[in-house]
Amino acid sequence: MRYVTYEKDNAPRLGALSDNLIFDVQTLVPGAPATLRELIDADATVQDKIAKAVAAAPKSDGLPVSDCHLLQPITNPGKIICLGLNYADHAKEGGHAIPEYPAMFMRCTTSMIGPNDPMILPQCSEQLDWEAELTIVIGKRCRHVKKSDAADVIFGYTAMNDGSIREYQRKSAQWTAGKNFDGTGALGPCVVTADELPKAASGLKIQTRLNGTVMQSSNTDQMIFDAYRTVEILSEIMTLEPGDLIAMGTPSGVGHARRPQVWMKAGDRVEVEIEGIGMLSNLVVAEKA
Amino acid sequence: MRYVTYEKDNAPRLGALSDNLIFDVQTLVPGAPATLRELIDADATVQDKIAKAVAAAPKSDGLPVSDCHLLQPITNPGKIICLGLNYADHAKEGGHAIPEYPAMFMRCTTSMIGPNDPMILPQCSEQLDWEAELTIVIGKRCRHVKKSDAADVIFGYTAMNDGSIREYQRKSAQWTAGKNFDGTGALGPCVVTADELPKAASGLKIQTRLNGTVMQSSNTDQMIFDAYRTVEILSEIMTLEPGDLIAMGTPSGVGHARRPQVWMKAGDRVEVEIEGIGMLSNLVVAEKA
Repeated sequence: MRYVTYEKDNAPRLGALSDNLIFDVQTLVPGAPATLRELIDADATVQDKIAKAVAAAPKSDGLPVSDCHLLQPITNPGKIICLGLNYADHAKEGGHAIPEYPAMFMRCTTSMIGPNDPMILPQCSEQLDWEAELTIVIGKRCRHVKKSDAADVIFGYTAMNDGSIREYQRKSAQWTAGKNFDGTGALGPCVVTADELPKAASGLKIQTRLNGTVMQSSNTDQMIFDAYRTVEILSEIMTLEPGDLIAMGTPSGVGHARRPQVWMKAGDRVEVEIEGIGMLSNLVVAEKA
Repeated sequence: MRYVTYEKDNAPRLGALSDNLIFDVQTLVPGAPATLRELIDADATVQDKIAKAVAAAPKSDGLPVSDCHLLQPITNPGKIICLGLNYADHAKEGGHAIPEYPAMFMRCTTSMIGPNDPMILPQCSEQLDWEAELTIVIGKRCRHVKKSDAADVIFGYTAMNDGSIREYQRKSAQWTAGKNFDGTGALGPCVVTADELPKAASGLKIQTRLNGTVMQSSNTDQMIFDAYRTVEILSEIMTLEPGDLIAMGTPSGVGHARRPQVWMKAGDRVEVEIEGIGMLSNLVVAEKA
């Protein structure tokens, strides 16, 4: 199943996405969870009911996705952990060695936006860059999960544009500042449950386009640490909780590694697309003075 | 005022701390907020009512703090942002230059524990280290706050032992892994409102003791970026929200910089104390296999 969160009467609603139509989950299945976070925690039979109800619903019950304002598919995520340098070609283009252990940082919720929201170019820097990333949505509270058991704790996958202000990312050795500007991290468009994707969401095309020009083009099978191994590594450190997000790093082709460097400007449209998940499409807008 | 969160009948309760006695806020002031997070958002007159009620209450209404299980003073913090290398002597002992811009990372809530809870030495490493840190509690949603206005957005201050697994902190260039092990970050014992402390909580003695031996001993006036400047720097990047925490970095004297290096072992007691705020006292306990 593919889940979205969309805005209706100024409130977030959980929707099931099928053939570009959004079916309101609570309308279809009375008593169903109101949010994706609640759905993750709910009994698995609820998802079966939703799937059956969507299959049985007349198309006229669906809202065209193009008519809806999509919000972040999970509006109240837990931790947002991001891997850096997880594609060999991207590590190389930044002048880094192939890592033996993943570099990690976190994003905070104030930096995140919906799949079609404006992406904000801040007043203080011109160096807004894109990063297409496969993103895991954790489904179960867990610790010390072996790679071979990791599939059990993954609810699904989504996409992130891990928008980065490179100048601030490099003001210190820690990347956190450049990764947490308001309105720079796009998430969505939907969360696809793991059963609808290949194992570990491997083998999916991943692409970024800037004003229609392809800037990143790779495949999730090129990741150094795959989704299952990443769950193993992270859960050695910390308890993972339902609704936690793990962004899996980005392939080569980012703006700061290009010669000349390319930064996103106000008026640009940046699209991140992952096969089987969908597209984030964000217009870059200058922060209001 | 000094606020704690303590456990009563297996549930968290907001308490006001006076002369080592805890006065239950909702018992004293019917209709008062149930949590510190709600209190931060409440009208300022609520705090006046609580202060008057505490002053008027007979001592027999208070519970001795030593009889209570203190929880993290803010049980549902927002972002937990931590500065690194913010004391010149600590930067030097780690072989780092004095920073011109603060190094930042984040901790997640699963890594945090209460002021007297066991601190967990993980199975995978022996390198558990202490870091005493003054910690800001944000009181207002804000962005682009000037240093001169920063006092307006600070609710108060608390203390953190930013427990670190050094081996994992240095597995990549990003410190996040080593800073987020379950049960390694102690917070509390109370949140002291800013009016009870010097400006920017400067001039406070800050100390760590391991089994009674002083390991860190400094003063918050030694910070490179003080609380107000830090709010200015962070709010250039991101919206700060009520309940966000900003840990201000640690002075020299950490275990990994000693020769020979000193790591905390199971059975050790680590105390972090900040003048005017109070003491975190945590027994180190090995993670269960």
